[in-house]
Amino acid sequence: MSFADRIRHCNSYDPAGVIPLSAGEHRIGWLRRDNAETLKRHDKVFRVKRDRAELTVEGSCDNVSRAVDAVVEDLVAERRIPKWRSETFDVARRWGEPPILRLDRGAVPFFGVRAYGIHVNGYCRDGDRYSLWIGRRAANKQVAPGKLDNLVAGGIGNGQSAAATLAKEAEEEASIDAALIARAIAVGALTYRMETKLGIRDDVMFVYDLEVPGDFAPRNTDGEISGFELMPLADVLERIRTTMDFKFNVNLVILDFAVRHGVLRPDDPEYLDVANGLHRPLD
Amino acid sequence: MSFADRIRHCNSYDPAGVIPLSAGEHRIGWLRRDNAETLKRHDKVFRVKRDRAELTVEGSCDNVSRAVDAVVEDLVAERRIPKWRSETFDVARRWGEPPILRLDRGAVPFFGVRAYGIHVNGYCRDGDRYSLWIGRRAANKQVAPGKLDNLVAGGIGNGQSAAATLAKEAEEEASIDAALIARAIAVGALTYRMETKLGIRDDVMFVYDLEVPGDFAPRNTDGEISGFELMPLADVLERIRTTMDFKFNVNLVILDFAVRHGVLRPDDPEYLDVANGLHRPLD
Repeated sequence: MSFADRIRHCNSYDPAGVIPLSAGEHRIGWLRRDNAETLKRHDKVFRVKRDRAELTVEGSCDNVSRAVDAVVEDLVAERRIPKWRSETFDVARRWGEPPILRLDRGAVPFFGVRAYGIHVNGYCRDGDRYSLWIGRRAANKQVAPGKLDNLVAGGIGNGQSAAATLAKEAEEEASIDAALIARAIAVGALTYRMETKLGIRDDVMFVYDLEVPGDFAPRNTDGEISGFELMPLADVLERIRTTMDFKFNVNLVILDFAVRHGVLRPDDPEYLDVANGLHRPLD
Repeated sequence: MSFADRIRHCNSYDPAGVIPLSAGEHRIGWLRRDNAETLKRHDKVFRVKRDRAELTVEGSCDNVSRAVDAVVEDLVAERRIPKWRSETFDVARRWGEPPILRLDRGAVPFFGVRAYGIHVNGYCRDGDRYSLWIGRRAANKQVAPGKLDNLVAGGIGNGQSAAATLAKEAEEEASIDAALIARAIAVGALTYRMETKLGIRDDVMFVYDLEVPGDFAPRNTDGEISGFELMPLADVLERIRTTMDFKFNVNLVILDFAVRHGVLRPDDPEYLDVANGLHRPLD
Protein backbone atom coordinates (compact mmCIF):
# COMPACT_ATOMS: atom_id res chain seq x y z
CA MET A 1 0.00 0.00 0.00
CA SER A 2 1.36 3.39 -0.96
CA PHE A 3 0.33 6.96 -1.69
CA ALA A 4 0.84 6.22 -5.39
CA ASP A 5 -1.79 3.44 -5.12
CA ARG A 6 -4.39 6.04 -4.13
CA ILE A 7 -3.49 8.14 -7.15
CA ARG A 8 -3.54 5.14 -9.48
CA HIS A 9 -6.98 4.20 -8.13
CA CYS A 10 -8.34 7.57 -9.31
CA ASN A 11 -6.68 7.19 -12.71
CA SER A 12 -7.64 3.66 -13.57
CA TYR A 13 -9.64 3.31 -16.76
CA ASP A 14 -9.04 1.52 -20.01
CA PRO A 15 -8.52 4.03 -22.87
CA ALA A 16 -9.35 1.26 -25.36
CA GLY A 17 -12.71 0.77 -23.64
CA VAL A 18 -14.00 4.28 -24.29
CA ILE A 19 -14.79 6.38 -27.34
CA PRO A 20 -14.87 10.18 -27.56
CA LEU A 21 -18.21 11.98 -27.51
CA SER A 22 -18.17 15.21 -29.52
CA ALA A 23 -20.36 18.24 -30.02
CA GLY A 24 -19.39 19.82 -33.33
CA GLU A 25 -15.60 19.94 -33.42
CA HIS A 26 -15.16 19.61 -29.67
CA ARG A 27 -14.85 16.50 -27.55
CA ILE A 28 -17.15 16.88 -24.56
CA GLY A 29 -17.11 13.40 -23.03
CA TRP A 30 -15.80 9.82 -22.96
CA LEU A 31 -18.36 7.07 -23.55
CA ARG A 32 -17.64 3.58 -22.32
CA ARG A 33 -18.36 1.16 -25.17
CA ASP A 34 -21.35 -0.46 -23.42
CA ASN A 35 -22.84 2.97 -22.81
CA ALA A 36 -22.17 3.95 -26.43
CA GLU A 37 -23.98 0.80 -27.57
CA THR A 38 -27.01 1.78 -25.48
CA LEU A 39 -27.06 5.23 -27.06
CA LYS A 40 -27.44 3.78 -30.58
CA ARG A 41 -31.21 3.56 -30.00
CA HIS A 42 -31.36 7.31 -29.43
CA ASP A 43 -30.33 8.21 -32.96
CA LYS A 44 -32.30 11.44 -33.08
CA VAL A 45 -29.93 12.91 -30.48
CA PHE A 46 -26.70 10.92 -30.83
CA ARG A 47 -24.84 9.44 -33.79
CA VAL A 48 -22.74 6.51 -32.56
CA LYS A 49 -20.02 5.05 -34.77
CA ARG A 50 -17.40 2.42 -34.01
CA ASP A 51 -14.76 4.76 -32.64
CA ARG A 52 -16.61 7.95 -31.88
CA ALA A 53 -19.99 9.37 -31.04
CA GLU A 54 -21.56 12.73 -31.71
CA LEU A 55 -24.25 14.81 -30.13
CA THR A 56 -26.24 15.81 -33.22
CA VAL A 57 -28.76 18.20 -31.68
CA GLU A 58 -27.77 21.83 -32.06
CA GLY A 59 -29.14 25.17 -30.96
CA SER A 60 -29.60 26.90 -27.65
CA CYS A 61 -28.45 25.36 -24.37
CA ASP A 62 -32.14 24.93 -23.40
CA ASN A 63 -32.86 23.13 -26.63
CA VAL A 64 -29.90 20.74 -26.41
CA SER A 65 -30.53 20.11 -22.70
CA ARG A 66 -34.17 19.16 -23.36
CA ALA A 67 -33.19 16.67 -26.06
CA VAL A 68 -30.53 15.03 -23.89
CA ASP A 69 -32.87 15.00 -20.86
CA ALA A 70 -35.34 12.93 -22.88
CA VAL A 71 -32.59 10.37 -23.48
CA VAL A 72 -31.57 10.44 -19.81
CA GLU A 73 -35.20 9.79 -18.86
CA ASP A 74 -35.15 6.58 -20.92
CA LEU A 75 -31.76 5.59 -19.47
CA VAL A 76 -33.08 6.01 -15.95
CA ALA A 77 -36.17 3.91 -16.84
CA GLU A 78 -33.82 1.24 -18.23
CA ARG A 79 -31.70 1.49 -15.05
CA ARG A 80 -28.60 2.42 -17.05
CA ILE A 81 -28.44 5.53 -14.88
CA PRO A 82 -29.40 4.95 -11.24
CA LYS A 83 -31.70 7.94 -10.72
CA TRP A 84 -32.20 11.61 -11.33
CA ARG A 85 -30.15 13.75 -8.96
CA SER A 86 -32.22 16.83 -9.87
CA GLU A 87 -29.07 18.92 -9.90
CA THR A 88 -27.48 19.88 -13.20
CA PHE A 89 -23.88 20.44 -14.26
CA ASP A 90 -22.79 22.63 -17.18
CA VAL A 91 -21.18 20.85 -20.12
CA ALA A 92 -18.90 23.26 -22.00
CA ARG A 93 -15.98 23.09 -24.40
CA ARG A 94 -13.72 24.54 -21.72
CA TRP A 95 -13.97 25.74 -18.12
CA GLY A 96 -15.49 29.20 -18.10
CA GLU A 97 -17.07 29.03 -21.56
CA PRO A 98 -20.86 29.15 -22.09
CA PRO A 99 -22.45 25.71 -21.68
CA ILE A 100 -23.51 23.61 -24.65
CA LEU A 101 -26.00 21.84 -22.39
CA ARG A 102 -26.92 21.27 -18.77
CA LEU A 103 -26.82 17.63 -17.70
CA ASP A 104 -28.38 15.94 -14.68
CA ARG A 105 -25.57 15.11 -12.26
CA GLY A 106 -26.64 11.46 -12.18
CA ALA A 107 -25.91 11.18 -15.91
CA VAL A 108 -22.43 12.75 -15.81
CA PRO A 109 -20.39 9.51 -15.57
CA PHE A 110 -22.55 7.77 -18.22
CA PHE A 111 -21.47 10.40 -20.76
CA GLY A 112 -18.03 10.89 -19.22
CA VAL A 113 -18.26 14.66 -19.38
CA ARG A 114 -15.82 16.74 -17.36
CA ALA A 115 -17.16 17.75 -13.98
CA TYR A 116 -15.85 20.43 -11.64
CA GLY A 117 -15.94 20.56 -7.88
CA ILE A 118 -14.46 22.39 -4.90
CA HIS A 119 -12.64 20.79 -1.96
CA VAL A 120 -11.58 22.56 1.24
CA ASN A 121 -8.72 21.51 3.48
CA GLY A 122 -9.87 22.90 6.86
CA TYR A 123 -6.82 22.95 9.09
CA CYS A 124 -5.37 24.06 12.40
CA ARG A 125 -1.68 24.59 12.90
CA ASP A 126 0.66 24.52 15.87
CA GLY A 127 4.12 25.45 14.53
CA ASP A 128 4.77 22.95 11.77
CA ARG A 129 2.27 20.41 13.15
CA TYR A 130 -0.94 20.46 11.17
CA SER A 131 -4.35 18.95 11.97
CA LEU A 132 -7.18 18.54 9.48
CA TRP A 133 -10.91 18.67 10.05
CA ILE A 134 -12.25 15.47 8.50
CA GLY A 135 -15.93 14.68 7.88
CA ARG A 136 -17.55 11.27 7.63
CA ARG A 137 -19.97 10.96 4.70
CA ALA A 138 -23.53 9.96 5.58
CA ALA A 139 -24.39 6.26 5.17
CA ASN A 140 -27.07 7.10 2.59
CA LYS A 141 -24.79 9.04 0.19
CA GLN A 142 -24.97 7.69 -3.35
CA VAL A 143 -21.20 7.95 -3.86
CA ALA A 144 -18.74 6.63 -1.24
CA PRO A 145 -21.16 6.28 1.72
CA GLY A 146 -19.47 6.24 5.13
CA LYS A 147 -16.08 7.27 3.75
CA LEU A 148 -13.96 10.07 5.22
CA ASP A 149 -14.08 13.45 3.48
CA ASN A 150 -12.68 16.99 3.46
CA LEU A 151 -14.21 19.64 5.72
CA VAL A 152 -16.21 20.91 2.72
CA ALA A 153 -16.58 19.56 -0.81
CA GLY A 154 -19.16 19.79 -3.54
CA GLY A 155 -19.84 19.82 -7.26
CA ILE A 156 -20.15 23.07 -9.18
CA GLY A 157 -23.74 23.26 -10.37
CA ASN A 158 -24.89 24.90 -13.58
CA GLY A 159 -24.26 28.62 -13.81
CA GLN A 160 -22.27 28.68 -10.55
CA SER A 161 -18.73 29.94 -10.03
CA ALA A 162 -16.17 28.10 -7.93
CA ALA A 163 -16.34 30.88 -5.33
CA ALA A 164 -20.16 30.75 -5.06
CA THR A 165 -20.10 26.96 -4.71
CA LEU A 166 -17.44 27.27 -2.02
CA ALA A 167 -19.58 29.66 0.05
CA LYS A 168 -22.79 27.63 -0.40
CA GLU A 169 -21.25 24.26 0.47
CA ALA A 170 -19.30 25.74 3.42
CA GLU A 171 -22.57 26.98 4.91
CA GLU A 172 -24.61 23.81 4.21
CA GLU A 173 -21.99 21.18 5.00
CA ALA A 174 -20.14 22.72 7.91
CA SER A 175 -21.98 25.89 9.07
CA ILE A 176 -19.01 28.04 8.05
CA ASP A 177 -20.14 31.66 7.79
CA ALA A 178 -19.28 34.17 5.07
CA ALA A 179 -16.58 35.91 7.13
CA LEU A 180 -14.67 32.70 7.76
CA ILE A 181 -14.98 31.21 4.26
CA ALA A 182 -13.72 34.53 2.84
CA ARG A 183 -10.36 33.56 4.36
CA ALA A 184 -10.15 30.37 2.25
CA ILE A 185 -7.29 30.54 -0.25
CA ALA A 186 -7.51 29.00 -3.74
CA VAL A 187 -4.38 26.87 -3.98
CA GLY A 188 -4.68 24.95 -7.24
CA ALA A 189 -6.57 22.37 -9.26
CA LEU A 190 -6.20 18.58 -9.27
CA THR A 191 -7.36 16.30 -12.06
CA TYR A 192 -8.08 12.60 -12.50
CA ARG A 193 -9.97 10.25 -14.82
CA MET A 194 -11.47 7.09 -13.37
CA GLU A 195 -13.80 4.30 -14.44
CA THR A 196 -16.76 3.60 -12.15
CA LYS A 197 -19.68 1.20 -12.43
CA LEU A 198 -21.58 3.90 -14.31
CA GLY A 199 -18.92 5.07 -16.75
CA ILE A 200 -16.08 7.58 -16.64
CA ARG A 201 -15.41 10.33 -14.10
CA ASP A 202 -13.29 13.07 -15.70
CA ASP A 203 -12.93 15.41 -12.78
CA VAL A 204 -11.32 18.72 -11.92
CA MET A 205 -11.11 19.64 -8.24
CA PHE A 206 -10.50 23.28 -7.34
CA VAL A 207 -8.72 23.11 -4.00
CA TYR A 208 -8.89 25.65 -1.15
CA ASP A 209 -7.00 25.84 2.15
CA LEU A 210 -8.83 27.32 5.14
CA GLU A 211 -7.01 27.82 8.43
CA VAL A 212 -9.66 27.77 11.16
CA PRO A 213 -9.43 29.12 14.72
CA GLY A 214 -8.76 26.70 17.59
CA ASP A 215 -12.32 27.14 18.91
CA PHE A 216 -13.96 26.40 15.54
CA ALA A 217 -16.13 23.29 15.29
CA PRO A 218 -18.00 22.44 12.08
CA ARG A 219 -21.67 21.44 12.22
CA ASN A 220 -23.44 19.77 9.30
CA THR A 221 -26.87 21.06 8.34
CA ASP A 222 -27.74 19.21 5.12
CA GLY A 223 -27.48 15.62 6.38
CA GLU A 224 -24.63 14.74 4.01
CA ILE A 225 -22.00 14.39 6.76
CA SER A 226 -22.61 12.26 9.87
CA GLY A 227 -19.85 13.87 11.94
CA PHE A 228 -16.52 15.70 11.99
CA GLU A 229 -13.22 15.03 13.73
CA LEU A 230 -10.00 17.05 13.99
CA MET A 231 -7.15 14.64 13.16
CA PRO A 232 -3.37 15.17 13.20
CA LEU A 233 -2.14 15.32 9.61
CA ALA A 234 0.53 12.68 10.32
CA ASP A 235 -2.21 10.21 11.34
CA VAL A 236 -4.31 11.14 8.31
CA LEU A 237 -1.37 10.50 5.97
CA GLU A 238 -0.63 7.11 7.52
CA ARG A 239 -4.31 6.20 7.15
CA ILE A 240 -4.27 7.34 3.52
CA ARG A 241 -1.19 5.24 2.84
CA THR A 242 -2.49 2.06 4.49
CA THR A 243 -6.31 2.10 4.16
CA MET A 244 -9.16 2.95 1.81
CA ASP A 245 -11.00 4.86 4.59
CA PHE A 246 -11.05 8.13 2.66
CA LYS A 247 -13.26 8.79 -0.37
CA PHE A 248 -11.14 8.07 -3.47
CA ASN A 249 -10.55 11.67 -4.57
CA VAL A 250 -10.17 13.08 -1.05
CA ASN A 251 -6.90 11.13 -0.77
CA LEU A 252 -5.55 13.29 -3.60
CA VAL A 253 -6.64 16.57 -2.02
CA ILE A 254 -4.92 15.74 1.27
CA LEU A 255 -1.75 14.47 -0.43
CA ASP A 256 -1.58 17.79 -2.29
CA PHE A 257 -1.94 19.61 1.07
CA ALA A 258 0.98 17.59 2.48
CA VAL A 259 3.13 18.43 -0.57
CA ARG A 260 2.33 22.16 -0.57
CA HIS A 261 3.03 22.54 3.15
CA GLY A 262 6.36 20.70 3.11
CA VAL A 263 5.08 17.73 5.13
CA LEU A 264 5.91 15.37 2.29
CA ARG A 265 9.40 16.31 1.07
CA PRO A 266 11.67 15.61 -1.90
CA ASP A 267 13.60 12.97 0.09
CA ASP A 268 10.46 10.78 0.27
CA PRO A 269 10.81 8.05 -2.39
CA GLU A 270 7.18 8.66 -3.45
CA TYR A 271 7.56 12.44 -3.64
CA LEU A 272 7.61 12.85 -7.41
CA ASP A 273 4.85 10.31 -7.96
CA VAL A 274 2.66 12.30 -5.61
CA ALA A 275 3.66 15.90 -6.42
CA ASN A 276 3.36 15.26 -10.15
CA GLY A 277 0.69 12.53 -10.26
CA LEU A 278 -2.11 14.71 -8.93
CA HIS A 279 -2.26 16.56 -12.25
CA ARG A 280 -3.54 14.58 -15.20
CA PRO A 281 -3.21 16.43 -18.53
CA LEU A 282 -6.48 18.06 -19.60
CA ASP A 283 -6.69 16.24 -22.93
CA MET B 1 0.83 36.79 -25.15
CA SER B 2 -0.44 34.71 -22.29
CA PHE B 3 0.66 32.67 -19.28
CA ALA B 4 -0.07 29.53 -21.27
CA ASP B 5 2.46 30.69 -23.92
CA ARG B 6 5.21 30.56 -21.27
CA ILE B 7 4.22 27.01 -20.36
CA ARG B 8 4.03 25.94 -24.01
CA HIS B 9 7.50 27.40 -24.59
CA CYS B 10 8.92 25.03 -21.95
CA ASN B 11 7.05 22.07 -23.43
CA SER B 12 7.84 22.50 -27.09
CA TYR B 13 9.63 19.60 -28.67
CA ASP B 14 8.79 17.23 -31.49
CA PRO B 15 8.20 13.70 -30.14
CA ALA B 16 8.79 12.35 -33.68
CA GLY B 17 12.21 13.99 -33.71
CA VAL B 18 13.60 12.07 -30.73
CA ILE B 19 14.29 8.43 -29.92
CA PRO B 20 14.51 6.85 -26.47
CA LEU B 21 17.91 6.10 -24.97
CA SER B 22 17.87 3.06 -22.69
CA ALA B 23 20.16 1.40 -20.16
CA GLY B 24 19.06 -2.22 -19.84
CA GLU B 25 15.26 -2.18 -19.54
CA HIS B 26 15.03 1.44 -18.47
CA ARG B 27 14.72 4.54 -20.59
CA ILE B 28 17.20 7.11 -19.28
CA GLY B 29 17.13 9.79 -21.97
CA TRP B 30 15.67 11.20 -25.19
CA LEU B 31 18.08 11.57 -28.11
CA ARG B 32 17.30 14.00 -30.87
CA ARG B 33 17.79 12.19 -34.20
CA ASP B 34 20.80 14.29 -35.25
CA ASN B 35 22.46 13.55 -31.92
CA ALA B 36 21.62 9.86 -32.27
CA GLU B 37 23.23 9.86 -35.72
CA THR B 38 26.41 11.33 -34.23
CA LEU B 39 26.51 8.60 -31.57
CA LYS B 40 26.61 5.85 -34.20
CA ARG B 41 30.40 6.31 -34.42
CA HIS B 42 30.72 5.47 -30.73
CA ASP B 43 29.54 1.92 -31.12
CA LYS B 44 31.61 0.53 -28.25
CA VAL B 45 29.45 2.53 -25.83
CA PHE B 46 26.13 3.06 -27.62
CA ARG B 47 24.09 0.89 -29.97
CA VAL B 48 21.93 3.20 -32.13
CA LYS B 49 19.04 1.78 -34.13
CA ARG B 50 16.37 3.54 -36.14
CA ASP B 51 13.90 4.07 -33.34
CA ARG B 52 15.92 3.55 -30.18
CA ALA B 53 19.39 3.70 -28.76
CA GLU B 54 21.03 1.78 -25.97
CA LEU B 55 23.89 2.40 -23.61
CA THR B 56 25.74 -0.92 -23.90
CA VAL B 57 28.44 -0.46 -21.27
CA GLU B 58 27.55 -2.09 -17.97
CA GLY B 59 29.13 -2.33 -14.56
CA SER B 60 29.82 0.12 -11.77
CA CYS B 61 28.81 3.77 -11.95
CA ASP B 62 32.53 4.68 -12.21
CA ASN B 63 33.00 2.29 -15.09
CA VAL B 64 29.97 3.49 -17.07
CA SER B 65 30.78 7.14 -16.36
CA ARG B 66 34.34 6.72 -17.68
CA ALA B 67 33.12 5.15 -20.92
CA VAL B 68 30.52 7.88 -21.51
CA ASP B 69 33.03 10.62 -20.58
CA ALA B 70 35.30 9.40 -23.38
CA VAL B 71 32.42 9.87 -25.82
CA VAL B 72 31.62 13.30 -24.38
CA GLU B 73 35.26 14.28 -24.84
CA ASP B 74 34.97 13.53 -28.55
CA LEU B 75 31.64 15.37 -28.78
CA VAL B 76 33.18 18.46 -27.19
CA ALA B 77 36.12 18.26 -29.63
CA GLU B 78 33.61 18.04 -32.50
CA ARG B 79 31.67 21.00 -30.98
CA ARG B 80 28.50 18.91 -30.67
CA ILE B 81 28.59 19.80 -26.98
CA PRO B 82 29.73 23.37 -26.25
CA LYS B 83 32.16 22.66 -23.42
CA TRP B 84 32.77 20.75 -20.25
CA ARG B 85 30.96 22.24 -17.28
CA SER B 86 33.09 20.21 -14.85
CA GLU B 87 30.01 19.54 -12.75
CA THR B 88 28.27 16.19 -12.96
CA PHE B 89 24.63 15.15 -12.62
CA ASP B 90 23.47 11.68 -11.57
CA VAL B 91 21.63 9.64 -14.21
CA ALA B 92 19.35 7.11 -12.51
CA ARG B 93 16.29 5.05 -13.38
CA ARG B 94 14.24 7.10 -10.94
CA TRP B 95 14.75 10.00 -8.54
CA GLY B 96 16.41 8.71 -5.37
CA GLU B 97 17.76 5.49 -6.89
CA PRO B 98 21.52 4.81 -7.18
CA PRO B 99 22.99 6.38 -10.33
CA ILE B 100 23.81 4.33 -13.41
CA LEU B 101 26.35 6.98 -14.37
CA ARG B 102 27.45 10.53 -13.65
CA LEU B 103 27.27 12.84 -16.65
CA ASP B 104 28.91 16.21 -17.21
CA ARG B 105 26.24 18.87 -16.96
CA GLY B 106 27.18 20.23 -20.39
CA ALA B 107 26.22 16.89 -21.97
CA VAL B 108 22.82 16.55 -20.28
CA PRO B 109 20.66 18.02 -23.09
CA PHE B 110 22.60 16.11 -25.78
CA PHE B 111 21.49 12.82 -24.20
CA GLY B 112 18.16 14.22 -22.97
CA VAL B 113 18.53 12.70 -19.52
CA ARG B 114 16.29 13.92 -16.74
CA ALA B 115 17.85 16.65 -14.64
CA TYR B 116 16.77 17.90 -11.24
CA GLY B 117 17.08 21.36 -9.76
CA ILE B 118 15.83 23.52 -6.90
CA HIS B 119 14.13 26.91 -7.22
CA VAL B 120 13.30 29.27 -4.36
CA ASN B 121 10.52 31.85 -4.37
CA GLY B 122 11.92 34.43 -1.91
CA TYR B 123 9.01 36.62 -0.89
CA CYS B 124 7.77 39.36 1.43
CA ARG B 125 4.16 39.78 2.30
CA ASP B 126 1.96 42.64 3.42
CA GLY B 127 -1.53 41.21 4.01
CA ASP B 128 -2.41 39.57 0.71
CA ARG B 129 0.06 41.68 -1.28
CA TYR B 130 3.17 39.70 -2.15
CA SER B 131 6.53 40.86 -3.43
CA LEU B 132 9.21 38.58 -4.88
CA TRP B 133 12.98 38.92 -4.76
CA ILE B 134 14.11 38.60 -8.37
CA GLY B 135 17.71 38.15 -9.54
CA ARG B 136 19.20 39.09 -12.89
CA ARG B 137 21.43 36.39 -14.37
CA ALA B 138 24.98 37.44 -15.18
CA ALA B 139 25.69 38.37 -18.82
CA ASN B 140 28.26 35.56 -19.10
CA LYS B 141 25.91 32.71 -18.05
CA GLN B 142 25.84 29.90 -20.60
CA VAL B 143 22.06 29.47 -20.33
CA ALA B 144 19.70 32.49 -20.48
CA PRO B 145 22.27 35.28 -19.88
CA GLY B 146 20.78 38.53 -18.57
CA LYS B 147 17.36 37.00 -17.93
CA LEU B 148 15.43 37.43 -14.66
CA ASP B 149 15.58 34.56 -12.17
CA ASN B 150 14.31 33.33 -8.80
CA LEU B 151 16.06 34.41 -5.60
CA VAL B 152 17.93 31.09 -5.61
CA ALA B 153 18.06 28.27 -8.16
CA GLY B 154 20.50 25.55 -9.09
CA GLY B 155 20.99 22.06 -10.44
CA ILE B 156 21.30 19.08 -8.12
CA GLY B 157 24.83 17.75 -8.58
CA ASN B 158 25.85 14.13 -8.28
CA GLY B 159 25.35 12.58 -4.86
CA GLN B 160 23.55 15.67 -3.53
CA SER B 161 20.10 15.83 -1.96
CA ALA B 162 17.58 18.56 -2.79
CA ALA B 163 18.01 19.96 0.74
CA ALA B 164 21.82 20.12 0.52
CA THR B 165 21.63 21.83 -2.89
CA LEU B 166 19.14 24.32 -1.48
CA ALA B 167 21.49 25.30 1.39
CA LYS B 168 24.58 25.49 -0.85
CA GLU B 169 22.96 27.58 -3.59
CA ALA B 170 21.25 29.87 -1.05
CA GLU B 171 24.64 30.68 0.47
CA GLU B 172 26.50 31.10 -2.85
CA GLU B 173 23.84 32.89 -4.87
CA ALA B 174 22.21 35.12 -2.27
CA SER B 175 24.23 34.96 1.00
CA ILE B 176 21.30 33.35 2.80
CA ASP B 177 22.56 31.75 6.01
CA ALA B 178 21.65 28.35 7.40
CA ALA B 179 19.15 29.73 9.93
CA LEU B 180 17.13 31.56 7.28
CA ILE B 181 17.20 28.83 4.60
CA ALA B 182 16.00 26.34 7.24
CA ARG B 183 12.68 28.24 7.08
CA ALA B 184 12.23 27.44 3.37
CA ILE B 185 9.25 25.16 2.77
CA ALA B 186 9.23 22.47 0.07
CA VAL B 187 6.00 23.15 -1.84
CA GLY B 188 6.04 20.78 -4.82
CA ALA B 189 7.73 19.76 -8.04
CA LEU B 190 7.21 21.15 -11.56
CA THR B 191 8.13 19.34 -14.77
CA TYR B 192 8.67 20.24 -18.41
CA ARG B 193 10.34 18.87 -21.54
CA MET B 194 11.81 21.29 -24.04
CA GLU B 195 13.95 21.23 -27.15
CA THR B 196 17.01 23.48 -27.14
CA LYS B 197 19.82 23.99 -29.64
CA LEU B 198 21.72 21.19 -27.91
CA GLY B 199 18.97 18.58 -27.56
CA ILE B 200 16.23 17.90 -25.02
CA ARG B 201 15.81 19.29 -21.50
CA ASP B 202 13.71 16.88 -19.41
CA ASP B 203 13.60 18.78 -16.15
CA VAL B 204 12.17 18.44 -12.67
CA MET B 205 12.20 21.54 -10.48
CA PHE B 206 11.79 21.08 -6.73
CA VAL B 207 10.18 24.31 -5.59
CA TYR B 208 10.59 26.04 -2.20
CA ASP B 209 8.91 29.10 -0.72
CA LEU B 210 10.96 31.28 1.64
CA GLU B 211 9.34 34.23 3.40
CA VAL B 212 12.13 36.69 4.18
CA PRO B 213 12.15 39.53 6.74
CA GLY B 214 11.55 43.10 5.56
CA ASP B 215 15.19 44.05 6.26
CA PHE B 216 16.61 41.12 4.25
CA ALA B 217 18.66 41.93 1.16
CA PRO B 218 20.30 39.18 -0.90
CA ARG B 219 23.93 39.54 -1.99
CA ASN B 220 25.46 37.36 -4.70
CA THR B 221 28.90 35.86 -4.03
CA ASP B 222 29.50 33.50 -6.97
CA GLY B 223 29.19 35.98 -9.84
CA GLU B 224 26.18 34.21 -11.36
CA ILE B 225 23.70 37.00 -10.54
CA SER B 226 24.39 40.63 -11.42
CA GLY B 227 21.82 42.09 -9.04
CA PHE B 228 18.57 41.59 -7.12
CA GLU B 229 15.36 43.56 -6.93
CA LEU B 230 12.23 43.22 -4.78
CA MET B 231 9.24 43.41 -7.17
CA PRO B 232 5.49 43.42 -6.46
CA LEU B 233 4.05 40.06 -7.55
CA ALA B 234 1.35 41.78 -9.60
CA ASP B 235 4.04 43.53 -11.68
CA VAL B 236 6.00 40.29 -12.02
CA LEU B 237 2.92 38.47 -13.32
CA GLU B 238 2.15 41.16 -15.87
CA ARG B 239 5.76 41.01 -17.07
CA ILE B 240 5.56 37.21 -17.30
CA ARG B 241 2.37 37.47 -19.33
CA THR B 242 3.65 40.09 -21.76
CA THR B 243 7.43 39.62 -22.06
CA MET B 244 10.20 37.02 -22.25
CA ASP B 245 12.25 38.85 -19.60
CA PHE B 246 12.31 35.86 -17.25
CA LYS B 247 14.37 32.72 -17.84
CA PHE B 248 12.05 30.19 -19.53
CA ASN B 249 11.55 27.88 -16.55
CA VAL B 250 11.41 30.66 -13.93
CA ASN B 251 8.09 31.75 -15.47
CA LEU B 252 6.67 28.38 -14.41
CA VAL B 253 7.97 28.62 -10.84
CA ILE B 254 6.40 32.04 -10.33
CA LEU B 255 3.09 31.05 -11.95
CA ASP B 256 2.95 28.11 -9.52
CA PHE B 257 3.56 30.56 -6.64
CA ALA B 258 0.65 32.71 -7.85
CA VAL B 259 -1.62 29.66 -8.05
CA ARG B 260 -0.71 28.27 -4.62
CA HIS B 261 -1.17 31.63 -2.88
CA GLY B 262 -4.55 32.37 -4.42
CA VAL B 263 -3.30 35.29 -6.53
CA LEU B 264 -4.35 33.52 -9.72
CA ARG B 265 -7.88 32.18 -9.09
CA PRO B 266 -10.33 29.77 -10.67
CA ASP B 267 -12.25 32.64 -12.32
CA ASP B 268 -9.19 33.48 -14.46
CA PRO B 269 -9.79 32.02 -17.96
CA GLU B 270 -6.19 30.67 -17.98
CA TYR B 271 -6.45 29.14 -14.49
CA LEU B 272 -6.69 25.47 -15.47
CA ASP B 273 -4.06 25.79 -18.20
CA VAL B 274 -1.67 27.16 -15.60
CA ALA B 275 -2.57 25.14 -12.50
CA ASN B 276 -2.50 21.90 -14.46
CA GLY B 277 0.03 22.68 -17.17
CA LEU B 278 3.00 23.03 -14.82
CA HIS B 279 3.04 19.27 -14.29
CA ARG B 280 4.08 17.20 -17.29
CA PRO B 281 3.62 13.44 -16.75
CA LEU B 282 6.89 11.71 -15.79
CA ASP B 283 6.83 9.26 -18.69
